[in-house]
Amino acid sequence: MVDVRFYKNKGPLTLAQIAEICGAELLDASKASETIADLASMEKANSQDICFFFDKKAKAKASEMKAKACISTNELKEFIPAHVIVLVCDNPKLASLKLNEALYELNAPKPQIAASAHISPQASLGQNCYVGENAVIAAGVKIGHNCRIEANAVIDENCVIGDNCRIGVGAHISYCLMGNDCYIFSGAQIGQDGFGFMMINGQHKRIPQLGRVIIGNDVEIGANACVDRGALDDTVIGDGCRIDNLTQVAHNVVLGRGCILVSQVGIAGSTHLGDYVVLGGQVGLADHVNIGSGTQIAAQSGVMSDIGPGQVMMGSPAVPIKQFMRQTAFVQKAVKK
Amino acid sequence: MVDVRFYKNKGPLTLAQIAEICGAELLDASKASETIADLASMEKANSQDICFFFDKKAKAKASEMKAKACISTNELKEFIPAHVIVLVCDNPKLASLKLNEALYELNAPKPQIAASAHISPQASLGQNCYVGENAVIAAGVKIGHNCRIEANAVIDENCVIGDNCRIGVGAHISYCLMGNDCYIFSGAQIGQDGFGFMMINGQHKRIPQLGRVIIGNDVEIGANACVDRGALDDTVIGDGCRIDNLTQVAHNVVLGRGCILVSQVGIAGSTHLGDYVVLGGQVGLADHVNIGSGTQIAAQSGVMSDIGPGQVMMGSPAVPIKQFMRQTAFVQKAVKK
Amino acid sequence: MVDVRFYKNKGPLTLAQIAEICGAELLDASKASETIADLASMEKANSQDICFFFDKKAKAKASEMKAKACISTNELKEFIPAHVIVLVCDNPKLASLKLNEALYELNAPKPQIAASAHISPQASLGQNCYVGENAVIAAGVKIGHNCRIEANAVIDENCVIGDNCRIGVGAHISYCLMGNDCYIFSGAQIGQDGFGFMMINGQHKRIPQLGRVIIGNDVEIGANACVDRGALDDTVIGDGCRIDNLTQVAHNVVLGRGCILVSQVGIAGSTHLGDYVVLGGQVGLADHVNIGSGTQIAAQSGVMSDIGPGQVMMGSPAVPIKQFMRQTAFVQKAVKK
Repeated sequence: MVDVRFYKNKGPLTLAQIAEICGAELLDASKASETIADLASMEKANSQDICFFFDKKAKAKASEMKAKACISTNELKEFIPAHVIVLVCDNPKLASLKLNEALYELNAPKPQIAASAHISPQASLGQNCYVGENAVIAAGVKIGHNCRIEANAVIDENCVIGDNCRIGVGAHISYCLMGNDCYIFSGAQIGQDGFGFMMINGQHKRIPQLGRVIIGNDVEIGANACVDRGALDDTVIGDGCRIDNLTQVAHNVVLGRGCILVSQVGIAGSTHLGDYVVLGGQVGLADHVNIGSGTQIAAQSGVMSDIGPGQVMMGSPAVPIKQFMRQTAFVQKAVKK
Repeated sequence: MVDVRFYKNKGPLTLAQIAEICGAELLDASKASETIADLASMEKANSQDICFFFDKKAKAKASEMKAKACISTNELKEFIPAHVIVLVCDNPKLASLKLNEALYELNAPKPQIAASAHISPQASLGQNCYVGENAVIAAGVKIGHNCRIEANAVIDENCVIGDNCRIGVGAHISYCLMGNDCYIFSGAQIGQDGFGFMMINGQHKRIPQLGRVIIGNDVEIGANACVDRGALDDTVIGDGCRIDNLTQVAHNVVLGRGCILVSQVGIAGSTHLGDYVVLGGQVGLADHVNIGSGTQIAAQSGVMSDIGPGQVMMGSPAVPIKQFMRQTAFVQKAVKK
Repeated sequence: MVDVRFYKNKGPLTLAQIAEICGAELLDASKASETIADLASMEKANSQDICFFFDKKAKAKASEMKAKACISTNELKEFIPAHVIVLVCDNPKLASLKLNEALYELNAPKPQIAASAHISPQASLGQNCYVGENAVIAAGVKIGHNCRIEANAVIDENCVIGDNCRIGVGAHISYCLMGNDCYIFSGAQIGQDGFGFMMINGQHKRIPQLGRVIIGNDVEIGANACVDRGALDDTVIGDGCRIDNLTQVAHNVVLGRGCILVSQVGIAGSTHLGDYVVLGGQVGLADHVNIGSGTQIAAQSGVMSDIGPGQVMMGSPAVPIKQFMRQTAFVQKAVKK
C-alpha cells in the first residue's frame, strides 16, 4: 500500500525476519518462511500486507481485518480473525517503527552539489553533503558532514551547522549556531530580527537585535516556523526539541531539552521552558514567563504567569486541567438550568 | 479605479453588453449604448464607473453614490440617486463576478519555460505550461496541460499534478498527487513529514512518514499553509476545498468535498471532515475527531470530540452556538450584578 | 558577549564617549578615559562589558552584577555593586538603543547585483541597491535608492518599492505599492488573492481579486506573514505599522498609522483599524469590524463587533479587560466553593 514512487521498498522479508526485527513472537512457527513485501494500516491492509493492531479502541474493527499478518499483543490477539497470521510483542507501536525503517527508505538524494548552488569560496562543507538547486551558502558558513541542504535554502554569513543536518527547501538560516542531527523543515525562518521596538516621538523605533539562535543537537523545526534571534542574549533551543509547523518562537526564548511545541504555538519574548515541556496546538505563552520541566499545556491555552514543573494546564488563562473541566461544566450547567 | 498596471482592462463595454453579461435589466433602455470602462466599490466609484449595490446595510450610503451606473435589485433600486443609471437583477453579487471577469484579466504570463528553471529530463510537462525563474521540477514529476509553475517553486520527485494547476512562488510540493484546476499559493508546503514521535530512552524518535498527500480537483491551498503527508494512510483534500493562508493540516487528515478552512486553522492528525464543513479563522481541531458534513465552527473555537452533521458550533471547547451565546451572557451578567 | 562573527564591533569607546552618546552622566569622572568594547545583559556581562539596569524587578539580581560599567537611573544606582562604574540618565532603555547602534553594525551587504539575479530590462532600480542571488524582479517594477532585495525574493510585475527598503529572503511581493524605509521579512507573502468565494451550483467560485496592497512608509512586515490584496478597493497598511511573524491580514483590511500586530494575529476581510492600535499575539478580528485609535486588545482575544478608541479589551468574545478579569475570577471562585 505504500507508494513505491515515493518510498523505496527494501523487501520482501520473511515473517521470521520480521519477528526478529520487531522483537515479536510468530505464534504459528510453520509460517516462518512466508514473505511480506508491504505494510498498511489495519483498515487498508490487503491479503499481501502486514499491519499493526495496538489501539484498544479498534477492537471492534479488528474482526474485519484482511491482512496476511498482524503484529499485536497477547491481550489483543484474540480479536484478530483466524485467517491472519499473528505475531505478538510487548510494544507493537515500537515494532511498527522498526519495521517501517527495515522495509522502506526515503529516496534520500545522493551526495552532490548542484551546479546552480551558490556556495561562497569562504564557506566550508564537510564530506558527503548534498546541496540542491539554487541553494545559497554565504561566506564564513561552516557545515558538517552528511548534511542535506535542499533547493533554494539560504544560509547566511558565518552560520555554523553540525553533522547530519537537513535544511529544507527554501528554509533560511541566519545568526545561528546549530548542533548535529537537526532537521529544519521547508520554509522555516531561523534568526530573523526579534519584534522589539521603543516609541520615540510617535515612531516605533527598532531596537537593534544583536543576539543569535543557538540550536542544540537532534532538533526539529517545522515547515514555515519562525525562530527569532535574541536581542542581546541568545534564543536557545535545547537538545531534542520538536517544533511543529507554523510555530513562533520569539527573541530570547529558551527551551530546555526535549520540549514539544505542536503546530501554531506562539511563545513571546524571553519566556523560558524547562525540559520536556509539551505545548499543545495554538498555545500562546506571554513574555517573560517560566514554565517548569515536564509541564503540559493543552491546545489553545494561554499562559500569562509562571507555572511550576509537572503541571497539566488548560484554558485561557490557563488553570490546572481538572479545574478547567470543572469551570467548563459549571458554566454549561448554569445555562441549562 | 482598478489599477491597469496590475489588471488588463478589456473594456469599454456598452450598458447593453453589461446587461447581457450580468443577466440584468437596464431600466432606461435609452442608455443602452452608453459605455463603461471601469468598476469600483459603491463608496469609491466616480462618474465614469459602474458599481454594485446588494448589501442592505449600505442603504444609508447609497444616496451618496457618485457612479455612472449601478447594478442592484428591484428591492434596493429606490435608494439609488436619480443621476445614476440603474440595472437590476436577482443576484447582483453574481453579476459582479461576471462583470469582473468580462472587464478585467489578470496579467497571466505567456506559456514559456524560464531558462533558469531546473526541469529534470525525467519529468514530463503538458502543453502550454509556464515555468518561472529558478523553479525546480524533479525526476519523475508529471505535470498536465496549461499549468503555471511560478518562480522558485519546487516540485519533488514523482509528484503528479493535473491540468490547469497553478503552483505559486516558492511553494514546495512533495509526496503529492494532485488533480486538475488546483491553485497552491506562494510559500505553501505540501507533503512535509507529519509530526509523529515516540519516546524511546528519553528521545523523541521520529516515526517514519510513509504516506502521501492526495489533492482532488479544484482545490485551493493558501499562502504559507502547510499540509503534511500521511504517516501510512494518506492525507486527503477533497474536491473543491478552499484552504486559506497559514493553515495547518496534519498527517492523515481527510477533508471531504468543498470544505472551507479560514486562515490560521489548525487540524491535528487523523481528524476527518465531511463535505462542505466550514471552519472559521484560528479554529483548532484535536486529533482523531470526526466532523459531520455541513457543520460550521465559528472562529477561534476548539473541538476535542466528534460533531455530527449540520451543526453550528462555537467556543473552546465548542458547544452549539446558541448555548455558547447563553454561556457568554450568563458569565457577563453574573459579573455585572 | 556579542558575537563578532555576526555583528561588526565598531569599538572600543571611552566611557566619556559612551556618556555623550547616551546622554548619561559618568558619576566618577576619573574613569572617563577607560574603554569599553562590548555590551551584554546584566546577567551575562563580564568585567570587560557595559550593561544596562532599568528594570525595577531586577533589583535583587543587581548585586550579582559583574560588569565593568552600568548605565542606570538615579533611583536604581544604589543597587549596583561598588566595583561597577556607574553612569546615570533618565532613560537607560533609550540609551541602550543608542549604544547598540554606536557599538555594532549589522554586516549589511555591499551594494551589488548578483549575477544570478533575474532583473527585467523593463524594471528600474535606484542607486546603491543590493540584489541577492536568484532574486527575481519583473518587468515594470520600480525600486528606489538604497534598497536591499535579498536572495530568492520575487517582486512581480509593476510593483513599486520606495527608497531604503529591505525585501527579505524568499519574500514575494505582488500587486503592491510600497513607500520608503520598509522592511518585509523573509518568506512574507504580500499581495496574494484574498479569500473570497461565491457558492454556485455546489462549487466555491473564486471572486476575482482586482485590488492592491498599499504600504506606507516605515512599515515592517514579519517573517512568513501574509497580507492579501484587496478585492476591489485596496488593502492598506499605514505608515509606521509593525506586523510580526506569521500574521494574516486579509483583503481590504485598512490599518491606520503605527499599529502593532503581534505574532499570529489574524484580521479578517474589510476590518479597519485606527491609529496606534495594538493587537496581542494570536488575536483574531472578524470581518467588517472597526477598531478605534489607541485601542489595545490582549493576546488570544477574539473580536466580533466594533470597538471605540482608547479601549483595553480581552477575551473571546472580547470585553473590557477589567470585566474579563472579573468574569475569570467569578468562574474560578464558583468552582472552588
